[in-house]
Amino acid sequence: MALQLYIGNKNYSSWSMRPWVLMTQAGIPFEEIMVRFDSFESDSAFKKALRGLNPVGKVPVLVDEGFAVWDTLAIGEYLAERFPDKRLWPVDARDRARARSVCAEMHSGFGALRSHCPMNIEAALTDTGRLIWRDQAAVRADMARLCGLWGELLAAQPEKMPDGSAPLLFGHFSIADAYFAPVCMRIKTYGLPLPADLQAYVERVAALPGVKAWIDGALAEHDFLDFEEPYRLGR
Amino acid sequence: MALQLYIGNKNYSSWSMRPWVLMTQAGIPFEEIMVRFDSFESDSAFKKALRGLNPVGKVPVLVDEGFAVWDTLAIGEYLAERFPDKRLWPVDARDRARARSVCAEMHSGFGALRSHCPMNIEAALTDTGRLIWRDQAAVRADMARLCGLWGELLAAQPEKMPDGSAPLLFGHFSIADAYFAPVCMRIKTYGLPLPADLQAYVERVAALPGVKAWIDGALAEHDFLDFEEPYRLGR
Repeated sequence: MALQLYIGNKNYSSWSMRPWVLMTQAGIPFEEIMVRFDSFESDSAFKKALRGLNPVGKVPVLVDEGFAVWDTLAIGEYLAERFPDKRLWPVDARDRARARSVCAEMHSGFGALRSHCPMNIEAALTDTGRLIWRDQAAVRADMARLCGLWGELLAAQPEKMPDGSAPLLFGHFSIADAYFAPVCMRIKTYGLPLPADLQAYVERVAALPGVKAWIDGALAEHDFLDFEEPYRLGR
Repeated sequence: MALQLYIGNKNYSSWSMRPWVLMTQAGIPFEEIMVRFDSFESDSAFKKALRGLNPVGKVPVLVDEGFAVWDTLAIGEYLAERFPDKRLWPVDARDRARARSVCAEMHSGFGALRSHCPMNIEAALTDTGRLIWRDQAAVRADMARLCGLWGELLAAQPEKMPDGSAPLLFGHFSIADAYFAPVCMRIKTYGLPLPADLQAYVERVAALPGVKAWIDGALAEHDFLDFEEPYRLGR
């Protein structure tokens, strides 16, 4: 098969989730190669397995006939160019620019949300989430920005799409929804509060077949990695 | 004029430098709107000036007939689409993918270099740089990765371009060179050590007319902002 996607543990690897969901939901065939997170030390099996493909030693990496593309944003652009009829970015130039702005903002931002609420799909950490919400102003600020961002985009969409479904961030599924899918997972795991219309967006994303397939994979993993578990002693 | 670019202080704002250099070097006309960094508090004049354009309240922001595009990566993609004959990304699909990978890596990485060696074009901080180099293993690691990245790309280029000049990262000037231009500034300010061939690349970037114009602007500013100056008490 032409395309291979190297990913980390589905339960934990938020960056891996983005291109996997993108390709799965868009119907782009690929071979999944899972490299378990044993540790992030430079002599770990994980780092050794990745380094030949990506000098940074991180997942995800997309390999197209031996050519490696790393970093989720570059992978998204590569796939959008290689599969133009999948319309992975919005078709309208301004929508496309806005989609890239919000993906880039996710790429380098939302640091408090990411560090305090690491993705952990199988865990139910709503009490932890309530403590985080009470004590971490920076997490509340990240969530306020997220609500502003999602709210503005969704407000510009029609109430229903032509097929009767409710809209995603740019109407049809796009890279932007894949990009925010791990955030939806965090919101569910930690029970972070959202206005009802945005909670409904989170549920729509979680119900997308490509997202559901990732969640099912995460739930089937039964792997527990201490260094990804600041809040649990075991499963 | 159709395009406006909102930037911060030229001496300090590494993110602003990227699209400004890109557009200037590529010959894309635009109006520069400088918003001085008074502070990054939410009630600062800086934040107030930006927030109407970009909800995140950061520079740079590109405004095209009232439509705002923020974040340097999204601005780069927008300009590449709007001015296809400028060939802002490399023409070869794999080169383009690699250019996007390294820009995305810069976008979310090189954290130690960025925090210990903030851009300060007018300052000569080579003694500070020697202390940083001695004491900060993470800065040395970032520089090692940078050398690997630049070295691999430059090794794939011809010795001379058709016009007799030495090559840039992907031969001709591209978004990737604009993206690493602020890193070249840091290397010069702090005197960080590099192999001779990569030091020559730094000098080539610094001598590009679009980069030179930014440097001249930075040197003409004569502004001193305490919160951007961890190593100086005054000019």
